[in-house]
Amino acid sequence: MSQRNFTRTQVGIVGCGPAGLFLAHLLHRAGIESVIVESRTREAVEGTIRAGLLEHWVTELMRDMGLGDRMAREGHAHDGITLQYGATRFHLPLDELTGGKRVTLYPQHEVLIDLIAARLADGGRIHFGVSDTAFHDIETDRPRIAFRHPDGTPDELSCDYVVGADGFHGPGRRAIPAAERREYDRTYPFGWLGILAHAPLSWHELIYARHEEGFALLTTRTPEIQRLYIQCDPRDDIANWPDERIWAALHRRLETAGDWKLADGRIFQKGIIPLRSFVCETMRRGRLFLAGDAAHIVPPTGAKGLNLAVADVLVLSRALEAALRRGDESGLDAYPATALRRIWKAERFSWMMTTMLHVDAAETPFEHRIRMADLDFLAGSRNAQAAVAENYVGLPF
Amino acid sequence: MSQRNFTRTQVGIVGCGPAGLFLAHLLHRAGIESVIVESRTREAVEGTIRAGLLEHWVTELMRDMGLGDRMAREGHAHDGITLQYGATRFHLPLDELTGGKRVTLYPQHEVLIDLIAARLADGGRIHFGVSDTAFHDIETDRPRIAFRHPDGTPDELSCDYVVGADGFHGPGRRAIPAAERREYDRTYPFGWLGILAHAPLSWHELIYARHEEGFALLTTRTPEIQRLYIQCDPRDDIANWPDERIWAALHRRLETAGDWKLADGRIFQKGIIPLRSFVCETMRRGRLFLAGDAAHIVPPTGAKGLNLAVADVLVLSRALEAALRRGDESGLDAYPATALRRIWKAERFSWMMTTMLHVDAAETPFEHRIRMADLDFLAGSRNAQAAVAENYVGLPF
Repeated sequence: MSQRNFTRTQVGIVGCGPAGLFLAHLLHRAGIESVIVESRTREAVEGTIRAGLLEHWVTELMRDMGLGDRMAREGHAHDGITLQYGATRFHLPLDELTGGKRVTLYPQHEVLIDLIAARLADGGRIHFGVSDTAFHDIETDRPRIAFRHPDGTPDELSCDYVVGADGFHGPGRRAIPAAERREYDRTYPFGWLGILAHAPLSWHELIYARHEEGFALLTTRTPEIQRLYIQCDPRDDIANWPDERIWAALHRRLETAGDWKLADGRIFQKGIIPLRSFVCETMRRGRLFLAGDAAHIVPPTGAKGLNLAVADVLVLSRALEAALRRGDESGLDAYPATALRRIWKAERFSWMMTTMLHVDAAETPFEHRIRMADLDFLAGSRNAQAAVAENYVGLPF
Repeated sequence: MSQRNFTRTQVGIVGCGPAGLFLAHLLHRAGIESVIVESRTREAVEGTIRAGLLEHWVTELMRDMGLGDRMAREGHAHDGITLQYGATRFHLPLDELTGGKRVTLYPQHEVLIDLIAARLADGGRIHFGVSDTAFHDIETDRPRIAFRHPDGTPDELSCDYVVGADGFHGPGRRAIPAAERREYDRTYPFGWLGILAHAPLSWHELIYARHEEGFALLTTRTPEIQRLYIQCDPRDDIANWPDERIWAALHRRLETAGDWKLADGRIFQKGIIPLRSFVCETMRRGRLFLAGDAAHIVPPTGAKGLNLAVADVLVLSRALEAALRRGDESGLDAYPATALRRIWKAERFSWMMTTMLHVDAAETPFEHRIRMADLDFLAGSRNAQAAVAENYVGLPF
């Protein structure tokens, strides 16, 4: 295998998701070489349809890095979102509330397609479809990543630093002994049933709705393809949800304000995902660093997952640059604390949006009334709206 | 008894606290007569030392009603509050954040002293020290309040409308059958141990502190008398808290930021109160209306109790005026819904401040981190600070 010739690199990265790809690009811009290994095939990475809402600064970063051309053409900038409870529907003007910031609807897999193509065009190395990936010698100054190529050939990256950008289930976090990991967890008693449907646009921006029956979210992919979600039991079987039942629930939950109607259409993809909050504060051990979902999960209500992964590696790339160029490890020492301040704020926001908008059978009647008062206060207070907006478009660094 | 001559009135009020007294004054201004009956003696009402922080509009209302002279002389306007967690202490500039609004530290019993004196000077009738108070015929158009004078003489008020402004334990709420009351409740697993001490001022404004050991609050009564609180077990016996133990806890919990020191002194009053949130949404039955603590309790963390009572009777007085002058009962019909929108926002704010600042052993480690992120976000976000400030100085009507 020709890859055998490239077993030495400065930064070895496991995971070709947003964290790993942005990191490789940021390091490349700083003149630092890296290699990515990824257990999925390129087709699987690029073909797994994922939602994506990019914070303002992420779109600017992509533009600055020369990665924003297709996003500029095909993404949809949103300068507001709509919230709804009972018969009340109100608009949060993100741009007005944040001094001109917006979010951009551009699916995560499209971001990955663009970043992979650009990385390969730059001569960057990505090994797809590898197996048996493992971190070794992370507490030495020559950590290694061992793996097998698709044809079974064993290979190894000998690195200055290694990064676990390998998602919640990857080997990165597990390379740190469980007893030494400080972890925080919240599993919500509800999930999201999501669909993609051929249907016309029903509303010009996202609608986040709290209904007595449960949460619903209206979002869009293209003028012809809409994405919608409803709160459901996370253990439910999608087979229990024929299309008519899904549409009936969507109509009930979304058509509560005025005489607005939801346009339906043919569902071509559906599935149920659980909702979880998770943080592993132990984001470094020796020369191994965790970034993105390997270290933290947010429920999708705040649309923070991808953005938080990029924020991690923005901090990490600067710290790696200082260490590799100037031998200054202070940034690496500070990386977990620096990243965690933003992570916990994003966890807070995601938890708050989730709690405010979902119906939880375990809530007391008092708590239920508090949620309604949250929404009532938010609907009427520009300050409260601005506090949501600044989180939604992405907190300053 | 001479009072026998006055058994007919337009509005009969049970309770000579903030709700009852403000209502009597507001009705008097509208040319409507009322009578207050109160189970405690005047000396007990005026002599029970209570904290008090008046929202901006309440001080304006008192001034407008000609009741603000002593408050203007002896009260202390605060244009900000201080919050603290770990080593971080930060200032919330209430006036800057709210376009010039402030709060005034003027104890509740001082407000009552002023309002009782003015009411009596206006010829208003207040029967103190009564017993066996009971509401009758509330579902007819001639409701009655029966009671006994201190000498045992039975008396009765025959009214157009009756108001239960008689606190959480009064007969007002109980005059509505329990099965017909819609009530919401949250009893917190902690209480406040409060002290009054002869000590110099330690800080120019209130300090709300979250400490790993529990909440602490520094407030003041006069330049020579300070009021302080610490979170404790609500079932604890004050006998377990010798003065040295209280001061030691206060020093530990408050002296975490920089080298600031708390000045201590001689404690001359101490006690433990439980913390509770409670709302009875059924604020009307027939011609009986509930106001203030009779209908809702907030934990003291948001300093909303007195202010919310005044807000209730501001709405109620206008509704009674419309009913008695023009026969228009629409305001009375709308009274519970109108009052409850503000009540639930105040309940939300009080619950939020309490939850954010207290240590709850039942909280998961994840929830604990969320609270710290709440404070971290609040410390750095002007929007979040403005959302707290607008609640603290009093939401607009």
